Amino acid sequence: MERNDAISILNDVSEAVHLLEGPSRIREFLRQVLRLQPLPLHSVARSTSLTVPVASALRRELEKRSLVARKGGIVLTEYGLKLLESIGVTETQIPRLQSGYPFPAWLNPVVEKLDILLSSRPGPDFSLDQSHAETATIAMRAAYLYEHDGIEGKDLLFLGDDDLTSLATIIFAKEFGLQLGSVVVFDLDERILEFVQEICRSTDCDIETHCLDLRERIPGHLRNSFDVFVTDPPYTVTGLSLFVGRGIEALKPGVGRQCFLSYGSRNPSDAVKVYASIVSMGLALQEVVPEFNRYVGAQMYAGVSNMIRCVTSDGTEAIIPEDLSTLYTDSRKRS
Amino acid sequence: MERNDAISILNDVSEAVHLLEGPSRIREFLRQVLRLQPLPLHSVARSTSLTVPVASALRRELEKRSLVARKGGIVLTEYGLKLLESIGVTETQIPRLQSGYPFPAWLNPVVEKLDILLSSRPGPDFSLDQSHAETATIAMRAAYLYEHDGIEGKDLLFLGDDDLTSLATIIFAKEFGLQLGSVVVFDLDERILEFVQEICRSTDCDIETHCLDLRERIPGHLRNSFDVFVTDPPYTVTGLSLFVGRGIEALKPGVGRQCFLSYGSRNPSDAVKVYASIVSMGLALQEVVPEFNRYVGAQMYAGVSNMIRCVTSDGTEAIIPEDLSTLYTDSRKRS
Repeated sequence: MERNDAISILNDVSEAVHLLEGPSRIREFLRQVLRLQPLPLHSVARSTSLTVPVASALRRELEKRSLVARKGGIVLTEYGLKLLESIGVTETQIPRLQSGYPFPAWLNPVVEKLDILLSSRPGPDFSLDQSHAETATIAMRAAYLYEHDGIEGKDLLFLGDDDLTSLATIIFAKEFGLQLGSVVVFDLDERILEFVQEICRSTDCDIETHCLDLRERIPGHLRNSFDVFVTDPPYTVTGLSLFVGRGIEALKPGVGRQCFLSYGSRNPSDAVKVYASIVSMGLALQEVVPEFNRYVGAQMYAGVSNMIRCVTSDGTEAIIPEDLSTLYTDSRKRS
Repeated sequence: MERNDAISILNDVSEAVHLLEGPSRIREFLRQVLRLQPLPLHSVARSTSLTVPVASALRRELEKRSLVARKGGIVLTEYGLKLLESIGVTETQIPRLQSGYPFPAWLNPVVEKLDILLSSRPGPDFSLDQSHAETATIAMRAAYLYEHDGIEGKDLLFLGDDDLTSLATIIFAKEFGLQLGSVVVFDLDERILEFVQEICRSTDCDIETHCLDLRERIPGHLRNSFDVFVTDPPYTVTGLSLFVGRGIEALKPGVGRQCFLSYGSRNPSDAVKVYASIVSMGLALQEVVPEFNRYVGAQMYAGVSNMIRCVTSDGTEAIIPEDLSTLYTDSRKRS
């Protein structure tokens, strides 16, 4: 196959599935298959940062053109191999690089405790873009907070906490004898707040909960009160901006207050909007860790999301979006 | 010690050393010492993202107040321990989390070859903000490019290459039998271009070099020509914006072209400017890896810098700064 023919096939496939990530993402898709075939759809979706429905549509199109087939997972056909070869991609013996924050064995006791405590948690309310992070993930969030000095003696705010990261944090702190400042949870979902209180009673821990709709301003006595906020906001850019804006309003003034933000990968043009929003509020990025968070059975964003760590600068200021009608994915679909 | 007294001591120290990172960074400094004491100044500078001169001024101030002392490295005094305790920070048995991209043993043959080939490289020209990345770092950059599909069959541009990442990339490709598209280096420093050509002759590799001052527009035939650009720009925000802008001009049109950018940590307010510049040009952040790059003997930025990986969106467009008089740190000092 000629290089130009291969490129035009990739362009055609990209147009056929309306892929916002462009033909280069299809190349990556095929390359992942080459490296690890046979590959389950979920894995390739995750490693190419595509949602499962998009990855599935892409697989269908690639099958239609006989570039891939199914054999205990996605595999390349001879034709698919030829296409890759013509654009320079061949099989190699290069191992995958290790990256991110691998889960350490010493965290297992925390995960085991959480698995027991959270077994009776309320199910996710999808209309609020809830989807539960795995217990290993929320334990890792607590460890990550500790690693980056976000726990000891600090006043912590969890903005929307269906993942129950607040509970993971106090269990983590208890396990390792850490002192916490105040721990506060805001959520719109009473079921979550009640569950947090129930676990606090049974474990003799202290978390303050407030039922708040973040579309409204947060009460005065809760503003300028925290060292750290932690959030895994709704999937829309509006949702992200609103939650981060309210988080900033809740932080104490001054440089170096912390924001730990879990957020899925977006197509390039939405990703620009996401980071433009973060930067416009004067938050300074410190780290972006792909695939840090894993979610139970979530199809959106291939069940993974990034950990984005920021600190406040001297120009940090909340900017609340004016139009809050499309806060949740659901409302966006309906409108 | 009372918590409020501790906080006001941290505030005083922060003001005494004019720390743009604020008192929370001093807390982190002391906390790092607690976790790993006795700790060399370089290590604590690196892990708190402070330059060595700033970390050194901070240590002096902390010594003056009897919070730390020197005993085979920085150690906490009894008084320092009391201060930390009063703000909730105590000694724990929690191990450090592993993070980033650990160097894999299978890359050693590449590093060994580079060590031999680069032994006669030209020394850094500090007036151009040059400082050599370690050979292990440039080998890791090549492996990272490969991991993220930035090598095979791709047309690659290295924008300023005193680190010689271009050579690391072709040696890596040769070692593992990878096909490359065109490999092009732009630099202002003829010594570097000559050295690259010399190594290419002796290893039978092919790199095209161009002596260019990026303050000038790049020649038409080199615009819209590359899939990937790699750069480790001057330390100033102007330098970053100029190099990234020229990189964008050199990329082929379309979504998903790649930018691999090495850049040191900045104080929060400058970090906001850095990412605002990246985002304003429509680049979509994919990953930010702290301490990915290590430099030989560099005092600036504690000898480490971040790897920032971006892709183009459909709104990507170069924005070249109007005032280019403060491109290099040196010019900034002089002005």
